[in-house]
Amino acid sequence: MAKKSLVILGSTGSIGRQALEIVRRFPEQFQVLGLGAGENLSLLKKQIEIFRPKLVSVKDPEKAEKLKKRIPSGIKVLSGEAGLMELAGLERAELVLVALVGAMGLRPLLRAIEAKKTIALANKEPMVMAGEIIKKRAEKNSVRLIPVDSEHCAIFQLLEKKGREEIKKVILSASGGPFRKRSGKDLKEVSPQEALAHPTWKMGKKISIDSATLMNKALELIEARWFFDLKVSQLEVIIHPQSIVHSLVELKDGSVLAHLSRPDMRIPISYALFYPQRAELDFPRLNLAKVGKLEFEPVDFNRFPALLLGYNALKKGGTMPAVMNASNEVAVEAFLSGKIRFNRIVELVEKVMKEHKPILARSLEQVLQADAWARARTKELIYG
Amino acid sequence: MAKKSLVILGSTGSIGRQALEIVRRFPEQFQVLGLGAGENLSLLKKQIEIFRPKLVSVKDPEKAEKLKKRIPSGIKVLSGEAGLMELAGLERAELVLVALVGAMGLRPLLRAIEAKKTIALANKEPMVMAGEIIKKRAEKNSVRLIPVDSEHCAIFQLLEKKGREEIKKVILSASGGPFRKRSGKDLKEVSPQEALAHPTWKMGKKISIDSATLMNKALELIEARWFFDLKVSQLEVIIHPQSIVHSLVELKDGSVLAHLSRPDMRIPISYALFYPQRAELDFPRLNLAKVGKLEFEPVDFNRFPALLLGYNALKKGGTMPAVMNASNEVAVEAFLSGKIRFNRIVELVEKVMKEHKPILARSLEQVLQADAWARARTKELIYG
Repeated sequence: MAKKSLVILGSTGSIGRQALEIVRRFPEQFQVLGLGAGENLSLLKKQIEIFRPKLVSVKDPEKAEKLKKRIPSGIKVLSGEAGLMELAGLERAELVLVALVGAMGLRPLLRAIEAKKTIALANKEPMVMAGEIIKKRAEKNSVRLIPVDSEHCAIFQLLEKKGREEIKKVILSASGGPFRKRSGKDLKEVSPQEALAHPTWKMGKKISIDSATLMNKALELIEARWFFDLKVSQLEVIIHPQSIVHSLVELKDGSVLAHLSRPDMRIPISYALFYPQRAELDFPRLNLAKVGKLEFEPVDFNRFPALLLGYNALKKGGTMPAVMNASNEVAVEAFLSGKIRFNRIVELVEKVMKEHKPILARSLEQVLQADAWARARTKELIYG
Repeated sequence: MAKKSLVILGSTGSIGRQALEIVRRFPEQFQVLGLGAGENLSLLKKQIEIFRPKLVSVKDPEKAEKLKKRIPSGIKVLSGEAGLMELAGLERAELVLVALVGAMGLRPLLRAIEAKKTIALANKEPMVMAGEIIKKRAEKNSVRLIPVDSEHCAIFQLLEKKGREEIKKVILSASGGPFRKRSGKDLKEVSPQEALAHPTWKMGKKISIDSATLMNKALELIEARWFFDLKVSQLEVIIHPQSIVHSLVELKDGSVLAHLSRPDMRIPISYALFYPQRAELDFPRLNLAKVGKLEFEPVDFNRFPALLLGYNALKKGGTMPAVMNASNEVAVEAFLSGKIRFNRIVELVEKVMKEHKPILARSLEQVLQADAWARARTKELIYG
């Protein structure tokens, strides 16, 4: 069997690194053609040595020049968005794993769709910003989108080969993040370090903060809406602190199907890389008798208003999800660099959303305009 | 759409009654052609008035004569095994629900297979006795067997459209029955009434006692082995007191799929009746946030040796499962009529199994001979 040829956008991030770990476990299955990284040059260099891609790209042009001198001369080095775009459309690549952070994944994702690549999508923000556009273009180009989020990977598997008319609702599980038990007052005093310490998952910074505010679940609601073509009324969230049940699907006869595993992102990453096959993985297995109990709680919207914003963005539709996402990206960055307090993140997003009059998000330009406006407005509110 | 025509063997039992409740909810979907009952004539008479079958059968010939006089003359009334056999092969019937108790379901089941009916199988003992024969004949006649047990219905749904090579193991959940927390000593003093009071399911007498000894789970292991063509090493049991997770399937990548619902047999019964469609049911829905937690425990084989007998029967194979089942049927009857103590049930089955030298169970005669021997031997041990 021919090897599946891969491009990984975001190879030095948490998802990218774990994807390469899987590739390394299955050297007969995959060939890495391209790697796109950010600023972690030393890690990228190691990855280049191991996986021997044809093309790599880094964020900064100067760093690209530096890198060039330290790697074999046959490997092409690009930089910036142009580099990501070339990687996304790389000839002979079959599968593009989009594991970038935030809105910057949008254009490369659209490029990969245009180039008719199969896409493993770990980067949820583009789907939140422009879900309708992405889905339409993917359909038009007969491109398969495979989710890498653990929740969406779970739903993808549970819905596979099911008729739409069978599905009553989809229930996303949420760990509740590190502050599930903290009072609202305490949340003001939360440091970036505390917010980054997720109880069940080890993840990148942006998604860790989003998990602490539950904005991550708001983004996932919107992602699920587009990925699985669901109505807002079909989407629910349940708090499940152990992160073992990754999501559930309720069918029309009252049956509920659930996908469980130990919280290990290598499982959904493998699923996406191997799809439509399934890999034999020898990671530690879930032992429910040892786990003892799985706990569930209703979502407290007062405590985690981000989730309400997610539902509102879905209901308003159009450019509103893009605004929510953009404002959140700016606010999270400000929090991580110590500019604002933790509880300000969601307050800011809410304020910016209130000011926004959504329009239909039919063209990419409309989406990007709304995104740009929300970023500028959020910065204005933070920095004056 | 033409109505699906049904025959129900065991119409006055717990499963039969609930099946007719479903039929009554969907009068446009089903037509009842035949009903087979035991001794509850007054209930059967009501069922006849409501569903107007063409053919009915009762256990006793004299009672059949009595019944004839009390129902419209166009309805044919038969009795005994001959009546069940005629029902099982009834012309124009599409689906036969076999909801009889114990070994008496075996011949009618084989008759329905021979007549190429689709079969909803609620009666697990025939599959335990003669799983290999049943599966072979079903395959030869291209007959679809749909399980009605909640666990097997769960597994059936979870495995549907999955490749065999994806499946690592199947985990049957067991509530642990009413005596999960009782000490071994206490079990000697258990009355039939206590043993019949199952904590989560309302069921018939035989299966309630089997659930209290966990012999039911032993039978289900063997049932699952044949239904889903699994190896003994792929079959596990986990204690789950709430009976909400009906079973789980572990896939080779470490994903675990689970089927959940409120413990309500009408859901698996509907699944079997409507298959390959799925009904929209408006029974109360599972609300996990309200349930709060799902608990799991390892099985304590010392406490519930019946499960070990199940594994042993599977490993020995051949006629051993039939012997286990027959001996258990006799012992349960003896317990229900006050002849033996609760803890004697499994002791007797174990003793009879130890005495049996299993042979291959290729022919029905071999199975029935082993069954007859085990019954006689168990009676001998009880009544001297």
